[in-house]
Amino acid sequence: MDATPLYRQLAAHYLDAIRAGSLKPGDKLPSLRHLMRQHGISLSTALQLCRSMEGEGWVEARERSGYFVRRPRRLSMAPMDEPAADRAPDPAQYVGIHAKVSDFVARRRQVTEKIDLSIARGAPELYPAEALRNAMTRLLRRRPGMLAVAAPLKGQRQFREVLAQRSLRAGMTLSPEEILVTNGCIEALNLALRAVAQPGDTVAVESPTFYGLLQVLESLGLQALEIPTSPQTGLSIEALDLAIHTYDNIKAVVVVPHLQNPLGSVMPDAHKARLAHLCEQHAIPLIEDDTYSELLDAPVPPRALKSFDASGNVIYCASLHKILAPGLRLGWITAGRWQARVEMLKFAQTRNNEALSQAAAGEFMATGGFERHLRHLRGCLKAQREQTADAIAGFFPSGTRINLPPGGLQLWVELPERLSSWRVFEAALAEHIVVAPGALFSNSSRFDHYLRINCGWPYGEAVDASLRRLGAIATELCRALPGAARAPTAAPAAPARPASDGTGAAASNRASTVSAEPSSAA
Amino acid sequence: MDATPLYRQLAAHYLDAIRAGSLKPGDKLPSLRHLMRQHGISLSTALQLCRSMEGEGWVEARERSGYFVRRPRRLSMAPMDEPAADRAPDPAQYVGIHAKVSDFVARRRQVTEKIDLSIARGAPELYPAEALRNAMTRLLRRRPGMLAVAAPLKGQRQFREVLAQRSLRAGMTLSPEEILVTNGCIEALNLALRAVAQPGDTVAVESPTFYGLLQVLESLGLQALEIPTSPQTGLSIEALDLAIHTYDNIKAVVVVPHLQNPLGSVMPDAHKARLAHLCEQHAIPLIEDDTYSELLDAPVPPRALKSFDASGNVIYCASLHKILAPGLRLGWITAGRWQARVEMLKFAQTRNNEALSQAAAGEFMATGGFERHLRHLRGCLKAQREQTADAIAGFFPSGTRINLPPGGLQLWVELPERLSSWRVFEAALAEHIVVAPGALFSNSSRFDHYLRINCGWPYGEAVDASLRRLGAIATELCRALPGAARAPTAAPAAPARPASDGTGAAASNRASTVSAEPSSAA
Repeated sequence: MDATPLYRQLAAHYLDAIRAGSLKPGDKLPSLRHLMRQHGISLSTALQLCRSMEGEGWVEARERSGYFVRRPRRLSMAPMDEPAADRAPDPAQYVGIHAKVSDFVARRRQVTEKIDLSIARGAPELYPAEALRNAMTRLLRRRPGMLAVAAPLKGQRQFREVLAQRSLRAGMTLSPEEILVTNGCIEALNLALRAVAQPGDTVAVESPTFYGLLQVLESLGLQALEIPTSPQTGLSIEALDLAIHTYDNIKAVVVVPHLQNPLGSVMPDAHKARLAHLCEQHAIPLIEDDTYSELLDAPVPPRALKSFDASGNVIYCASLHKILAPGLRLGWITAGRWQARVEMLKFAQTRNNEALSQAAAGEFMATGGFERHLRHLRGCLKAQREQTADAIAGFFPSGTRINLPPGGLQLWVELPERLSSWRVFEAALAEHIVVAPGALFSNSSRFDHYLRINCGWPYGEAVDASLRRLGAIATELCRALPGAARAPTAAPAAPARPASDGTGAAASNRASTVSAEPSSAA
Repeated sequence: MDATPLYRQLAAHYLDAIRAGSLKPGDKLPSLRHLMRQHGISLSTALQLCRSMEGEGWVEARERSGYFVRRPRRLSMAPMDEPAADRAPDPAQYVGIHAKVSDFVARRRQVTEKIDLSIARGAPELYPAEALRNAMTRLLRRRPGMLAVAAPLKGQRQFREVLAQRSLRAGMTLSPEEILVTNGCIEALNLALRAVAQPGDTVAVESPTFYGLLQVLESLGLQALEIPTSPQTGLSIEALDLAIHTYDNIKAVVVVPHLQNPLGSVMPDAHKARLAHLCEQHAIPLIEDDTYSELLDAPVPPRALKSFDASGNVIYCASLHKILAPGLRLGWITAGRWQARVEMLKFAQTRNNEALSQAAAGEFMATGGFERHLRHLRGCLKAQREQTADAIAGFFPSGTRINLPPGGLQLWVELPERLSSWRVFEAALAEHIVVAPGALFSNSSRFDHYLRINCGWPYGEAVDASLRRLGAIATELCRALPGAARAPTAAPAAPARPASDGTGAAASNRASTVSAEPSSAA
């Protein structure tokens, strides 16, 4: 027996229609009378159905006309601000991120999450596990001896050839000999930083940036200088230029030019050219982390920063586990003038990588199946990002802002300014929902009211329910802030509607702070 | 058509009989008359046969009695000296090993070797590739999704359980939670050193030690303090004690207690207890590298240093690629009081390991097949070490010394003192034979006249021929040394016999410096 109330079952049916596009923004929902007749339900149930959909932001009531499918609310949200780049950034500091991350990890270990929205990774079903499995099985049958000999130090030849060939699409001309296979992009970044910087040195990074990078810096005894970064165009070249002239001690710059984590920004080619030139001019090694570019909604990847490098000053790092298979630890690096040193460090750090996954990845990536997989993955992620953004727009408190990035696995969500995302994290965790608080993405407190939300999961009931609760939690915490009446939002606050429609306080709170004039349909 | 001269073919036949034990030390070779009749050969050929076997040290002529199978020559070789431990070792220094290793690597890349005697690794056929392949294929069939999800950060649970259980045999009581899977032992050592020492710090190591460790130290900016180490009992505790009191700046001690690389020494339990106590007393972290203990000729492994640790002061590192499969990069670490820091560093350095090889190794190691494999591996290596030692005793110049270790993959060979092993390496490389010169195993010049020889290859013609040439090369270089007549050897030098027996200068040179009184059989 299905315990879901009838009106919820029907709401799900109409939501499917909206999501599938058979009911488009502006379309009219069937009238109450029509709904009663068609589904054999009472007026009360038909009303519950419409109000719950209204409460969730999917439809809006127009006086005397009925309920209409809304334009995605996110389209009307205010975009995030561009960062100020006209003042020198705060001086570099030891990041102190381990304590935060450890705290975060220790806490989330205490619960079995319903769904993990804190990671930046696609759901297993988005990846071609079966094709890779078949490639591995074939390889094991053909070359069982592979397990009994050490793989080549630089990596499997065929795999490096495929990487070299694919990198042409990003404007890089590499020989397989210039490619070194690593244990994920994170090892590549470690090697790059160890090659060019010494403990105590200062490294310029984007702000915010992914906590993995901050951890690498901290573990290597490096100091992070956080450079203002645009949610649209990435690292501010002006701010970096200013920082270079202000501090004169920057030993490396690390940049994620495409689908920056967590912002999702994409650096325009002109910026990349300027950045490569600026770093070359000042003899500052430029480290490019290109983990995400294949997830950009485009048939070919953007030009790599490395493709603007004339002198070997750019160290390029990338990996496959976000685009090919999260179970593989395959990264790679091409290190320009530091290639020999990076190879030596890799040898001293972990020796060669195992052969099997390289060989299987190399085989699969040489087939058309890889491009088909990427197209499918991009399509799924695009839909999931939009659905997640719609849900956030629908469920989160007024004043919430997002930029919908043109690709990738996550959304960077700005909560109303005084709302601590750490508190949101804690309250959500108590309900077994895990999100990544903004405090993890910077050593400053600038992003303490941000959240990073994973969009890697196919959008279904579990994700929807989690985002709804998350929105409710944020809204509740927002209302509990001192002086909440003067909430920093342009939308006028309306009194909370009683939760008579059965969707609970969450939806009605959201509705109260978002809809200017809730009206019921005739 | 076989181009091998007839007498060589017959010599190979009798050598097989000696190696197989059907002709034992002390047994008489058939008389010349008997040989002529049995094989239908001339007296001249029968004499060539006997003299070539005598020249290679397999038989000795007794006047008027004939040729007799010799006792293995190595049994009569002088053992290596114990190191002097009564003076403080030289101060610690930056190792400067990378340049040497890079030079070594660059040179050996120039040739396609006939056989690589420079590594410390078993031949592929010594490892259970098929059993592991089957385990992998089964796992991929059962759990294809494994490729699409990230493996647990600490490692696969079942694999860690097997490791914890097996470590009981070495006297360690570990929970799987205390075990962290790494990319080989080399990553474990990196993490251990990074956890306890900072760039510029001094770390005490065995002297000689494997160049991989010296590279790790150098790449981390650590200084190596080389502690005299016995070829029999390993690190000199007295010398370490003296060094601790002399320098007062040692931040860690790294020890390979069992089958030390390159010496093959095995530390007695009493030494281990004293070492653990000494380090604890001075609050110096003790890092144990236990890569080889399963290769000891014994049914159970020796007690780990870690089993003498009462306070979490010992960090234990080990790996499987020398004992289970060189194609897998599976190491592990249990880090006592530094466990949390090591886990953080591992996360920041390479994240989790891939799941498949852990799961396959865990499955195989839980079966009786693993113990059977180990017994077989130990047996093969024992035979190969003895055959290699015999060959070295037979072919190398007088004054050469070896200790036959009670297990493991290699022999540490001391050449006559003024003979540079780097020159031997270069001359051998010109003939496509690769060995590891002693200069790679220390920052001092103390081991410049040593070689490490891999015994991982099944002893066959290729290995035999390579060792023969290596001996000849060393002998030639020895003779070319200024004042070679006063060679530092106890054996009286005899005039070189003309290479009339067709085995070339090598065998006759060797014979000339080894056999006191060559005689021909009647």
